Amino acid sequence: MATKAQVLYDFTAEPGNNELSVREGETITITNQSIGGGWIEAQNSRGEIGLVPEDYVELNKPQPSSGGGSVPPLDLSFFDTHVPTPAPAPASNTQSQVDVVQVESPDTPLTPVSPTSPDECNGNDPWAVFDNNASGGFSNNWAAQPEGTETGKNSSNAWGSTSYGHPQAYQGPGAEDDEWDDEWDERKSSGYTEGETGEGGAITRGGAHGSSMKIALNKFPGFSKSGPELFLLSKQSAKGNKLSVYIGEVGPVWEYPDSQLDCVVADPKKGSKMYGLKSYIEYQVSPNTTNRPVNHRYKHFDWLYERLLEKFGSAIPIPSLPDKQVTGRFEEEFIKMRMERLQAWMTRMCRHPVVANSEVFQLFLNYKDEKDWKTGKRKAEKDETVGVMIFSTIEPEGLPDLELLEVEQKCEQFSRFTKAMDDGVKDLLTVGHEHWKRCTGPLPKEYQRIGKALQNLSSVFTSSGYEGEATLTDAMTAAGKTYEEIAQMVAEQPKKDLHFLMETNNEYKGLLGCFPDTIGVHKAAIEKVKEADKLVATNKITTTEKVTMGKRASTMSYALQAEMNHFHSNRIYDYNRVMQLYLEQQVKFYETIAEKLRHAHSQFTTM
Amino acid sequence: MATKAQVLYDFTAEPGNNELSVREGETITITNQSIGGGWIEAQNSRGEIGLVPEDYVELNKPQPSSGGGSVPPLDLSFFDTHVPTPAPAPASNTQSQVDVVQVESPDTPLTPVSPTSPDECNGNDPWAVFDNNASGGFSNNWAAQPEGTETGKNSSNAWGSTSYGHPQAYQGPGAEDDEWDDEWDERKSSGYTEGETGEGGAITRGGAHGSSMKIALNKFPGFSKSGPELFLLSKQSAKGNKLSVYIGEVGPVWEYPDSQLDCVVADPKKGSKMYGLKSYIEYQVSPNTTNRPVNHRYKHFDWLYERLLEKFGSAIPIPSLPDKQVTGRFEEEFIKMRMERLQAWMTRMCRHPVVANSEVFQLFLNYKDEKDWKTGKRKAEKDETVGVMIFSTIEPEGLPDLELLEVEQKCEQFSRFTKAMDDGVKDLLTVGHEHWKRCTGPLPKEYQRIGKALQNLSSVFTSSGYEGEATLTDAMTAAGKTYEEIAQMVAEQPKKDLHFLMETNNEYKGLLGCFPDTIGVHKAAIEKVKEADKLVATNKITTTEKVTMGKRASTMSYALQAEMNHFHSNRIYDYNRVMQLYLEQQVKFYETIAEKLRHAHSQFTTM
Repeated sequence: MATKAQVLYDFTAEPGNNELSVREGETITITNQSIGGGWIEAQNSRGEIGLVPEDYVELNKPQPSSGGGSVPPLDLSFFDTHVPTPAPAPASNTQSQVDVVQVESPDTPLTPVSPTSPDECNGNDPWAVFDNNASGGFSNNWAAQPEGTETGKNSSNAWGSTSYGHPQAYQGPGAEDDEWDDEWDERKSSGYTEGETGEGGAITRGGAHGSSMKIALNKFPGFSKSGPELFLLSKQSAKGNKLSVYIGEVGPVWEYPDSQLDCVVADPKKGSKMYGLKSYIEYQVSPNTTNRPVNHRYKHFDWLYERLLEKFGSAIPIPSLPDKQVTGRFEEEFIKMRMERLQAWMTRMCRHPVVANSEVFQLFLNYKDEKDWKTGKRKAEKDETVGVMIFSTIEPEGLPDLELLEVEQKCEQFSRFTKAMDDGVKDLLTVGHEHWKRCTGPLPKEYQRIGKALQNLSSVFTSSGYEGEATLTDAMTAAGKTYEEIAQMVAEQPKKDLHFLMETNNEYKGLLGCFPDTIGVHKAAIEKVKEADKLVATNKITTTEKVTMGKRASTMSYALQAEMNHFHSNRIYDYNRVMQLYLEQQVKFYETIAEKLRHAHSQFTTM
Repeated sequence: MATKAQVLYDFTAEPGNNELSVREGETITITNQSIGGGWIEAQNSRGEIGLVPEDYVELNKPQPSSGGGSVPPLDLSFFDTHVPTPAPAPASNTQSQVDVVQVESPDTPLTPVSPTSPDECNGNDPWAVFDNNASGGFSNNWAAQPEGTETGKNSSNAWGSTSYGHPQAYQGPGAEDDEWDDEWDERKSSGYTEGETGEGGAITRGGAHGSSMKIALNKFPGFSKSGPELFLLSKQSAKGNKLSVYIGEVGPVWEYPDSQLDCVVADPKKGSKMYGLKSYIEYQVSPNTTNRPVNHRYKHFDWLYERLLEKFGSAIPIPSLPDKQVTGRFEEEFIKMRMERLQAWMTRMCRHPVVANSEVFQLFLNYKDEKDWKTGKRKAEKDETVGVMIFSTIEPEGLPDLELLEVEQKCEQFSRFTKAMDDGVKDLLTVGHEHWKRCTGPLPKEYQRIGKALQNLSSVFTSSGYEGEATLTDAMTAAGKTYEEIAQMVAEQPKKDLHFLMETNNEYKGLLGCFPDTIGVHKAAIEKVKEADKLVATNKITTTEKVTMGKRASTMSYALQAEMNHFHSNRIYDYNRVMQLYLEQQVKFYETIAEKLRHAHSQFTTM
């Protein structure tokens, strides 16, 4: 059954990559949808076949089978969903909490202790993809902004617009354009969705516009003009929970809970409304604290994302939700992939002590009933401790104020690191894409042709009628079949290893895409503090306010350092994990091929 | 040091094959000469880099280091040069010789016994390449020729002109054009070369014009008009040694010697003449019968080839010598490759009981001194039992005359088989070429990029200054280096396995290219016998002559069947051998990669 598709954008094939050039408006036939890696195989009207980024085409709309019914169980068994918490983690956490006074022991050889215990982050995280760098309506400011944040929306040094290779295969088009997705998550539907889309703020979903997080710069009228001054000079006392920063072995760290929050996103069920005209998928989210599942649709996750971004975005990179448009067009595949990525996103949020402990996140995981949910929702939407004001809740417990020079140096250091890592991650993604295409395209085809050629020759030999021919031809045919098997293995392997490496790196690409904004806020604050003397001289601020600004910049720096240490510890955990997984699977792959070939070799009995 | 080269012919890159399009007359820079498989990597003036068939370019002439001196010892150790003769072989031979009466035992389950014992053919044969299908001035007639052989040179169904993929990489241009080769084997030099080039016959070297063997059709003035009638109606009694055909277990077989002749081609030494202006390479050829080496230059092998073709070509496929132009432009590589292919050719000739036992072949291996050589040479050139007259020496010992129908069926069967095998072999060669290019071009580059990307990311991580970073980065760097090692392994592997598969198939392509001529002679004879009644009716021949014609067609058929059985037994041996070698090396390759990756995996100590 040939599936037709409309080409949405021009795509020019890169020579040697088994790609197919297509033009906007062209109709193509999908010949293989399970290529993976964001690619599909298609045939044009001239009969040419090649790979096309799946986001560049729109399938001719499938008829969704309306009505309810449980989706078949999905295979998430590759990773254990729950890894038991290893012993060292709580010890580390305890230490962080005990270390309320700054302890400097640079000369003591320390066993590296991470401030968090990401062990509970379990196996789902490599599934998450946060693809934020797509068609960006907003650009992410990476460059320092000496003039403050006034030009925050117009920076030229925007990562988001960097284009390289074919990352678009992993980047969905704007979610607004995603008609297909509407089949599942109708935004404009009625029901208990009124006011859910966060119209109160000026935030635009990162996923929607392809930029990373958008800090709630316009939530408060004065903010866009005053930038971080809102906090630096604020007179209001912090409301809500305090966020403590301690000194751990690695430096300033967030306060980590004794036990790691986690949740399982599972059991997607199709529901319908408007007399079956619209259908949607509801996921069960079960936190490990209660094991009581709550139901959420994609748009609820989206609402949560917007709240978290608004509230924490200045201090903590809140990665975008997985794109609405994810790999897989078939219903089951689509649901599975989205669920896996929602799981990864939730896991990462659970891992973060500040996010996990927040009221809005707890509401999302633990609401009792619809009334509870609605009340909590309204409260969260009215939260005023958002944007840079989050820093007003941060308490560096008993830590000395940092000199501005140190604050600046730390900020520069993180800026350099995250930029360099962003480059490295994108480079690996580019290479990975190329490799994915080769492994799923030309390479297995070639092994198949080798297999066929050997079998063909063997069948010619069989026709010789010569005595004893079978001793050769049986073995040769078996060898040919082995190469056909290898072809299949090669084509399927990327889904078993490269996929996870790609997903992890995509997740980090998304996270890293949040840093320019976060660091921009810090740089703007530093610039403001530098101007303090001038402001005092011109009577814009008092001397006391100048001292306050310095203290608050110090607080911001502690928060940034705690966040960077959280990032590093998670990064080390994630890359350790995914590299081990990748290499394990690669070893299995090559061992299996060797074993198959050894068996093929043993079929040759002569000599 | 950049080596420049002139492009001799237009070459259009095939998309996706890492090839570079070049135009005749263009100057390119060779960036990698050791690609192998008949390809070199070159860069054009626009800086584009890609693969070009090495036969399509002419290196800007190197200055040969003139004068004598022994060439460094070459590594031929990959194959054992001499495999001890296994026990079963002589038994089989004896049986063949004992079975002088036709024994039909179709229902007896027979252990397949090959009529020859190719065990002594040792390991060198896969090196031989007989590339006959290049730029053919003559075409090989494959189609049946109902009108006799009159149109023998103009058949349309010529294998030789078949073009597919890029087999040209394995096909040298006409040897006449090969100026470079003149450096080593000056044809027009003086010395003891007068009259050696076989001007007496109309034979053209297969290698020279790219066609397969050219049967000495014009050696005798009447032949080209009368075709096989020369033998069918000949009154002359056979001169020289009789060639016996017996019935073995597989059917008619040649008489095989008790011990297999073999020889070693080794120790190439550079000589010079004309006061050092011309240099050449002399090879030592040592037969296993005497172990006494004799010296031969390439043109002596060429002379031998012409004699064998002239004498046996109607009955036995005499594959062309390896092209003058072989892979490898550097002196040492060139000499090594040529020697290996001459060895393969000689081994195949030694394996053939009729060829090996012939006076001219024995002269080549055993001449005592220059006088002996010259005398023998003159005698061989005067040999009149050549062309179809070779059949007059064949004696089907005590075997019943075959009905014409059976003769025809056998001939058709061999025709179909060799055509089908030719297709199969060419298909495998095409696939092999593609695979060679991928394995030496894009694939290792990709592994290298993966390795670099991992190392780059690792070095970014190292810059974090985070405690305990090294546990990850050391392992990641090691993993990256492992992929760089794998890249190198991948690029080098084809020379260890695919090369031999390609060489064996090329050798068979050359052999199979001889069959259309050989079978054409038989088909022409069959047609003549079919016309016999008409010839009798019109008094062109007598009834006795008609009977003789039938008998002689039967003799020809026995010879063809013996030759086919020889071919089959060698083919089974060769393919068994090369397939085992290929799979062995492939197993080692994948095992080594798995082992390297296992080690890389073990470097990750966390979790």
